[in-house]
Amino acid sequence: MSTEPDAVVRAYIDAHRAAFLDDLAEWLRIPSVSADPERAGDVARSAEWLAAELSATGFPVAEVWPTEGLPAVYAEWPSADPGAPTVLVYGHHDVQPAARADGWDTEPFEPVVRDGRMYGRGAADDKGQVFFHTLGVRAHLAATGRDTPAVNLKLLIEGEEESGSPHFAALLRERADRLACDAVIVSDTGMWDERTPTVCTGMRGLTDCQIDLYGPDQDIHSGSFGGAVPNPATEAARLAAALHDEDRRVTVPGFYDGVIELTDRERALFAELPFDEAAWLRAAKSHALLGEAGYRTLERVWARPTAEVNGVVGGYTGPGGKTIVPSSAQLKLSFRLVAGQDPAAVERAVRAWVAGRLPDGIRHEITFWGATRPCLTPLDHPALQSVVRSMGRAFQSKILFTREGGSGPAADLQDVLEVPVLFLGISVPSDGWHSVNEKVELDLLLKGVETAAYLWGDLGEHWHR
Amino acid sequence: MSTEPDAVVRAYIDAHRAAFLDDLAEWLRIPSVSADPERAGDVARSAEWLAAELSATGFPVAEVWPTEGLPAVYAEWPSADPGAPTVLVYGHHDVQPAARADGWDTEPFEPVVRDGRMYGRGAADDKGQVFFHTLGVRAHLAATGRDTPAVNLKLLIEGEEESGSPHFAALLRERADRLACDAVIVSDTGMWDERTPTVCTGMRGLTDCQIDLYGPDQDIHSGSFGGAVPNPATEAARLAAALHDEDRRVTVPGFYDGVIELTDRERALFAELPFDEAAWLRAAKSHALLGEAGYRTLERVWARPTAEVNGVVGGYTGPGGKTIVPSSAQLKLSFRLVAGQDPAAVERAVRAWVAGRLPDGIRHEITFWGATRPCLTPLDHPALQSVVRSMGRAFQSKILFTREGGSGPAADLQDVLEVPVLFLGISVPSDGWHSVNEKVELDLLLKGVETAAYLWGDLGEHWHR
Repeated sequence: MSTEPDAVVRAYIDAHRAAFLDDLAEWLRIPSVSADPERAGDVARSAEWLAAELSATGFPVAEVWPTEGLPAVYAEWPSADPGAPTVLVYGHHDVQPAARADGWDTEPFEPVVRDGRMYGRGAADDKGQVFFHTLGVRAHLAATGRDTPAVNLKLLIEGEEESGSPHFAALLRERADRLACDAVIVSDTGMWDERTPTVCTGMRGLTDCQIDLYGPDQDIHSGSFGGAVPNPATEAARLAAALHDEDRRVTVPGFYDGVIELTDRERALFAELPFDEAAWLRAAKSHALLGEAGYRTLERVWARPTAEVNGVVGGYTGPGGKTIVPSSAQLKLSFRLVAGQDPAAVERAVRAWVAGRLPDGIRHEITFWGATRPCLTPLDHPALQSVVRSMGRAFQSKILFTREGGSGPAADLQDVLEVPVLFLGISVPSDGWHSVNEKVELDLLLKGVETAAYLWGDLGEHWHR
Repeated sequence: MSTEPDAVVRAYIDAHRAAFLDDLAEWLRIPSVSADPERAGDVARSAEWLAAELSATGFPVAEVWPTEGLPAVYAEWPSADPGAPTVLVYGHHDVQPAARADGWDTEPFEPVVRDGRMYGRGAADDKGQVFFHTLGVRAHLAATGRDTPAVNLKLLIEGEEESGSPHFAALLRERADRLACDAVIVSDTGMWDERTPTVCTGMRGLTDCQIDLYGPDQDIHSGSFGGAVPNPATEAARLAAALHDEDRRVTVPGFYDGVIELTDRERALFAELPFDEAAWLRAAKSHALLGEAGYRTLERVWARPTAEVNGVVGGYTGPGGKTIVPSSAQLKLSFRLVAGQDPAAVERAVRAWVAGRLPDGIRHEITFWGATRPCLTPLDHPALQSVVRSMGRAFQSKILFTREGGSGPAADLQDVLEVPVLFLGISVPSDGWHSVNEKVELDLLLKGVETAAYLWGDLGEHWHR
């Protein structure tokens, strides 16, 4: 019976579940926030911790790879099978900033298990989704009686994903020999919801920046001077407001150049998903839909490029009022990109647009953080079918397809390693990525373990280059 | 000779100058910041200090007057002359917020004298300009050999001017009997520059507010949700940007209702002042002019109503980037008003405008701080001529006319006490009101003392009701 090996996998996972969760919690306690220079030591500590854990899992190779920024972790477990395909799992061990004062119910770096969920920064994005591969490969070996995986298994877990992966492409190019593979499996996305397992077929790209505007050399009295000199807070607002027209289309000239539009078939496939507007809004913690005219919500977040104001600050922000013209203001903007867009071209377009919109007397500086290219997976790749079959066994359910609105360095992997990129994720929209009270659903996390346990055998059996 | 009493006044001021400056510095050390609830005790201490100082000056009455907010100081020195006019001097003892970290060269509440200037928060706005009346009235008595002033002299020094004087009108109404007078002299404005003594004939009004916008219940991932839900930082920017049209006219419907336009004669009088655009920009610490189309700079800041963004904050403002849709954003706006505008009507207009511009899914709250009415002095009042003559004797120069772009409770005084309001100020644009490194020019401060010393005798001689 085909369920026999699956029963073995499940029994193995059950037996090791408690230790697996304890280990994950230990990792989550390391505040590996890549955006905060003061946390660089914690990111390094997270890398060391993971390399040790992968060694303990059985990977014959487990190394910390330094970069010009923060370190990545690489591990390798060759297959004894001649002709086995080589798969590279990608994830990241850095996390978004988090502080209790942001509104967390518990300390973000003191993970707690409550109601079948583990809460903590990185629980879903991405430590949890990296970590299910440790128990997954062990379950694969235990259920199949193998000493080595049925694929040549490589893991590359970077440390700067939440900062735009500024050194990731360089790392890939430097280490291309060791990273050579037949496919990449990105373990940093999600699925439709708790009841609808899906495979993601693409990710949006990203480029983001900070715009600093300078007006008066210091804050000045709004009564004595206001109304007669340019105000950088006003100009920041005018820039941010001008990003979108009344149809909420991005107005930056050239922004949409090259965008691959959705086909009617893709729009129809998206429409098959059980989209519940009220539930989606609850997951978004939002109270209304608003976006580019002419597109549905899923199309807007998966397949349309966007511009977002991530932060703004300028002038007096303390209690009460202060009647000044502020000396400076700052915008943080991010742009999600879709297949066909080039982040470098978008950066140039934004720089030109900003420079052309500011009045005399307002000086500006723009800093772009690292850019991430958009990515689309070919639907007809045999490895994708292995992912779908393995998820189907784990979830005992039909697997549908989605895209991912977020961004990862999937396109770098695709471009540098010249292989297809697949996605395997068990996170759900309610997991609170980049937000307060981030969590992972333990049932889904263990389905991730189980999928990984089936996947290597399925790939070894069905896919030969 | 008419210069004889003036020489006596000058000698008296010279003899008492050092102690006068020491006493002012002592007062400036009290951080009487009315906008900061944690400084309420310091504002009270400032009031007690001033009342004691006025007693020591010789005022037979010197009292701290509590309000529902922060305390005012009242002092009275009746004239022995039958038929003497009664003059009420207005000023304030509270100050703007200030912190060394804002960019001050020295501690804002540790005054220092350097290069003929005294630096410290409140040096010019308004403690210095209140304080010149202490030595001024003593010089008046010394030079004239009088035991009492030639006018019935009253002082009302409030403690909430920098917070929009929320309880001042109520205080005036409650104490109207004791405050009864023939004219008010506001000692809280400035003159053209160090070399051009002027008398101010009007002040702009003010109403200001904080607008809080709420979108998602918490910060959410801009990749998963961005582009499909409203972003409160974007909406805050769209509000702030929409305040002005391309001609930098305020777009809020009804905002200009009732505005008394400048006459050709007023525009011509303003044009007589030695306006130096480069020098004005230096004083404004600004690098270009920008304002309402069709008006000159002085007209814009003195006689035109304006809308200003005093502060904005929302989303992530730390180091690096954070790809979120923020849960909230906040704007602090102020509106300068001119004669003919009603602050309450402007508040209603702004509230309606804001409410009508926000998309579904963005909740908002608006808090208006206290409003200050605009004010214009009648040019033909005999007391104005006394002010002009007294300044002319002190400065030994022709006195020109200005208006004040800033705001004070002059209109409340005018409305409640039903008397004309005059202005006497020696501050200059470079004094750094509401900014860092606030200072007062000591030469001008002592000309203020001297003007006050002449003014009471001139009024007593030339003005009888």
